[in-house]
Amino acid sequence: MTRERTAEEKKALIAELGVHQRTLRARGIPVIIVVEGWNASGISDTVATLLHGLDPRGFDFHAFGHPSEEEQARTFLWRFWVRTPARGRIAVFARSWYSRMLDEELRGIDWTGRLDRAIRSVRAFERQLADDGTLVLKFFLQISREEQRRRLLARERDTLTSWMITRNDWDFHRQYDAYTPLIRRIVEETDGPEAPWHVVEADLPGPAVQEVLSTVVERLRDRLEAPDDHRRPAVLPPVETALPVDGAESPHSLTGHEYRATVPECRDRLRACQYSLFRRKIPLVIVYEGWDAAGKGGSIKRLVESMNPRGYEVVPISRPNDGELAHHYLWRFYRRFPPAGEIRVFDRSWYGRVLVERVEGFASEHEWQRAYGEINEMERSYTESGGGLIKFWLEIDSATQLERFREREEDPLKQWKITEEDWRNREKRSQYEEAVREMLVRTHTPHAPWTVIESKSKPYARLRAQQAVIEYIEGLI
Amino acid sequence: MTRERTAEEKKALIAELGVHQRTLRARGIPVIIVVEGWNASGISDTVATLLHGLDPRGFDFHAFGHPSEEEQARTFLWRFWVRTPARGRIAVFARSWYSRMLDEELRGIDWTGRLDRAIRSVRAFERQLADDGTLVLKFFLQISREEQRRRLLARERDTLTSWMITRNDWDFHRQYDAYTPLIRRIVEETDGPEAPWHVVEADLPGPAVQEVLSTVVERLRDRLEAPDDHRRPAVLPPVETALPVDGAESPHSLTGHEYRATVPECRDRLRACQYSLFRRKIPLVIVYEGWDAAGKGGSIKRLVESMNPRGYEVVPISRPNDGELAHHYLWRFYRRFPPAGEIRVFDRSWYGRVLVERVEGFASEHEWQRAYGEINEMERSYTESGGGLIKFWLEIDSATQLERFREREEDPLKQWKITEEDWRNREKRSQYEEAVREMLVRTHTPHAPWTVIESKSKPYARLRAQQAVIEYIEGLI
Repeated sequence: MTRERTAEEKKALIAELGVHQRTLRARGIPVIIVVEGWNASGISDTVATLLHGLDPRGFDFHAFGHPSEEEQARTFLWRFWVRTPARGRIAVFARSWYSRMLDEELRGIDWTGRLDRAIRSVRAFERQLADDGTLVLKFFLQISREEQRRRLLARERDTLTSWMITRNDWDFHRQYDAYTPLIRRIVEETDGPEAPWHVVEADLPGPAVQEVLSTVVERLRDRLEAPDDHRRPAVLPPVETALPVDGAESPHSLTGHEYRATVPECRDRLRACQYSLFRRKIPLVIVYEGWDAAGKGGSIKRLVESMNPRGYEVVPISRPNDGELAHHYLWRFYRRFPPAGEIRVFDRSWYGRVLVERVEGFASEHEWQRAYGEINEMERSYTESGGGLIKFWLEIDSATQLERFREREEDPLKQWKITEEDWRNREKRSQYEEAVREMLVRTHTPHAPWTVIESKSKPYARLRAQQAVIEYIEGLI
Repeated sequence: MTRERTAEEKKALIAELGVHQRTLRARGIPVIIVVEGWNASGISDTVATLLHGLDPRGFDFHAFGHPSEEEQARTFLWRFWVRTPARGRIAVFARSWYSRMLDEELRGIDWTGRLDRAIRSVRAFERQLADDGTLVLKFFLQISREEQRRRLLARERDTLTSWMITRNDWDFHRQYDAYTPLIRRIVEETDGPEAPWHVVEADLPGPAVQEVLSTVVERLRDRLEAPDDHRRPAVLPPVETALPVDGAESPHSLTGHEYRATVPECRDRLRACQYSLFRRKIPLVIVYEGWDAAGKGGSIKRLVESMNPRGYEVVPISRPNDGELAHHYLWRFYRRFPPAGEIRVFDRSWYGRVLVERVEGFASEHEWQRAYGEINEMERSYTESGGGLIKFWLEIDSATQLERFREREEDPLKQWKITEEDWRNREKRSQYEEAVREMLVRTHTPHAPWTVIESKSKPYARLRAQQAVIEYIEGLI
């Protein structure tokens, strides 16, 4: 009788889950469900029950075993960021960044420091998603040491499943007591209002699955009854008067002759730098921001000219497409981040959030104000994971820009470079100036400082960028 | 003076290349440029020159070294199909399916047979892309054995590049004479009007790069001057009267009791089957096609219920989005093909091309007629590379469909399943019947036969599908 009641309850929960899924989809709310737990705690069975209650057109399932070669070559949160759900979709994770945190971060020597950093990155990651409207649910399936032993033995005895149990599983089992306080600490320190943990007692598999299912249904119901906009405004200190940027320099000039004399040496050193990064497996991101016609394209062309095309890529950023708009704004940039040893040159970047999106009103005030902190957190998490990052701002004054716009209009080979939009942007120069200034101040951080390049003289500006890249890489290695 | 003239010519070619790229983009023509050649023949330098002439907003560059773990787990052409360019974009490949053909296919024992199959697959692949409007350019950089030796030694002596030269390179070098006839044969047999080879004498690097550049410019110019629609109509034999389908069966029934009695055994065997595939690293695609309300969703749900969610995924297919429409219609399906050992269940599939797209006019007559051959080639290439494929057609008569539509309308939990579109499709039953019939006849091939399941009785149909999957997998292993 109890079993029948349970089966009925389960059926009712699954029906309700389906209804909520369709409403979430219609309202465009993304959901993340993380199922973590001890080995053999029943993660697969729990996830299987959840998935059977969902319409396959609306969810994505991600299981994490050991990271693939490609994934290992990426920094810590990369493979999770690129899998965050689009608006209206549910992403179910069987194991997640938490298992990776345990598995990988703890293999290092100075693991306490690494764990602190990993926890900080994960909290920022989950909070950013929640701020963007994502509902984050996290479950930890708790089983006792004895129950784990029983299950591992049972699987080993069953011919169908014996191949699944490896030496690794028994090694982990023997360390059960050592891992307990560590897991407790991680769960406690990543348990916040944006992404609370649900620790589920799972020695009895049936009730555990039921508890997960009913908690999911309950939290979806709560979210659907809450108002849509629950984003908290960012509290920002005022912008200080002095630009804290070292790289800002007074206008320089360089003759074509001087430029050409220095270029060959730069080329050789750049190529050597590229190979060093490749051999040391360090990924490098170079961000180019600057005024229209400041010379971003030309500078990038000269920078990569001497590089081996197998190791770099230029990533031009324009308006996001529909698929990109359905995600957190940082998602489309994460997707283009370099694997280990490679270089990605971003021709415009995530800073669009606090420049064009701010000035044109594509992002709300809350959104672009929140973005400074989000960007700083993202850049810090990336550089702390071992990635290199260089950020250029190409500065030209208004008169120089006007001159270059006119040149472009007159040159039949360059006319396509200049559009109505460029002229419209130019009219908003003072608004952009304010945005640029605030961006430089708020995102000039120790782990990701800006290099401002005075770009009135193109040869000087190009050389300056190349030299900055060389210095940065030579300093890394 | 000669050097100066060459530099000037190069500059002019690069300017023309940029102009053509913008026109191609505006006209939505996709371009593939393949650069192949001997080791140390200058592939990177050639590609670097090409890329510097292109606007980074319009090209994708793909370099192939050894395939990654994920890629190795895929069938032969997978990693190339998913990288074919969208309309208006240029994809540059440094090494390609040809190097993979040499590197991987030839490692097998029965290599002559494998090479024949690989050549056939590649020809079909390139012809399909060309038929779809893609311009395919292929270069082979030819250097002599002596020149190769000189370059390998020079790189080995240079501290900057010495790490690049491995034992492997010397092994290949020693086999130069053995590879020559093989390469010649591959080049000859894959040299067709849709995708001609340009063999470039590359002992002198400068002129070789120049030749590639001028050939690219020339062929782009030719393509832009040619009319847009150069697709050849498919010539199809008439459809025979008798359906050559074995699986078609007369209506069956099964009581709920009989169904429930058989299910537990099926579940266990399905789970065992899934693990066998996983351990043997065989990927499996299961295609579900059938009338609206024939029970695809329910059948899929029961099929995967007992499987481990880490090893299968249900892929629901609906209208293509804009990004998908910009590619060959098979592209979006390739992207969802399973890695080794995993199962993908397609709820509708590429057969939409010859069903809904044919009946609703989304594909032209040429396009859907050509699709039968394209699909057969694709399925053959995939199964010959070791992939498993099961295709179900779920058959119900018009009266049963009407009954189920009405049931859905009356059940508040199922109302969302029935839309105006379902009713509209129903009105075109006779057109769909003709399309279904032709599809079953033309794509029922030895390597990918259809299983037609009479689905008036849901329990029977579900069980039949499960049994067919079990039989297929048990027959494979």
